[in-house]
Amino acid sequence: MSQIVLQIDFPANGPFGQEMSEAYAELADHLAKTPGLIWKIWTENAETKEAGGIYLFTDQESAKAYLKEHTARLESFGIQNIRGKIFEINETLSKTTKFVG
Amino acid sequence: MSQIVLQIDFPANGPFGQEMSEAYAELADHLAKTPGLIWKIWTENAETKEAGGIYLFTDQESAKAYLKEHTARLESFGIQNIRGKIFEINETLSKTTKFVG
Repeated sequence: MSQIVLQIDFPANGPFGQEMSEAYAELADHLAKTPGLIWKIWTENAETKEAGGIYLFTDQESAKAYLKEHTARLESFGIQNIRGKIFEINETLSKTTKFVG
Repeated sequence: MSQIVLQIDFPANGPFGQEMSEAYAELADHLAKTPGLIWKIWTENAETKEAGGIYLFTDQESAKAYLKEHTARLESFGIQNIRGKIFEINETLSKTTKFVG
């Protein structure tokens, strides 16, 4: 595999929890169809007021295209200070620490 | 589930790739035994000179204890500007975007 991790986080004033699930249900349906996306974990922390996502992509080009598109979408929601980082996965070490891709 | 994501990243001058796999093989064996750890993805980007990890934990206490321990270990390696963030997972949205935990 040459899977790619995309890591996004940003300051957020909510909604969190159940309200977040409802607010972004339609967006999640849309994002599920993103080319090259294996999965997205939606992350949230109501205490530190942060949210974001951890994404597994099949390839770097798909991750880059999505990061550009999603950053623009978040900015259109009024979100600022968005941190987006793309990483390769070290397969050997990740297998040792129980990640099965 | 009430799984927890721990996200760590930091500036890194390497080793990357195969050399990284060899340099941290023993540490990975050790980390695989971390209480509460479901998996760790080892992340690396030789271009931006960054590395880190994405972790899935069974619970927040395990993630917090590990973050404290691992930050001290990274600092002992001379690594600085370590960013560690703990998040809850929005289960409903993550299921929609194909994450099966």
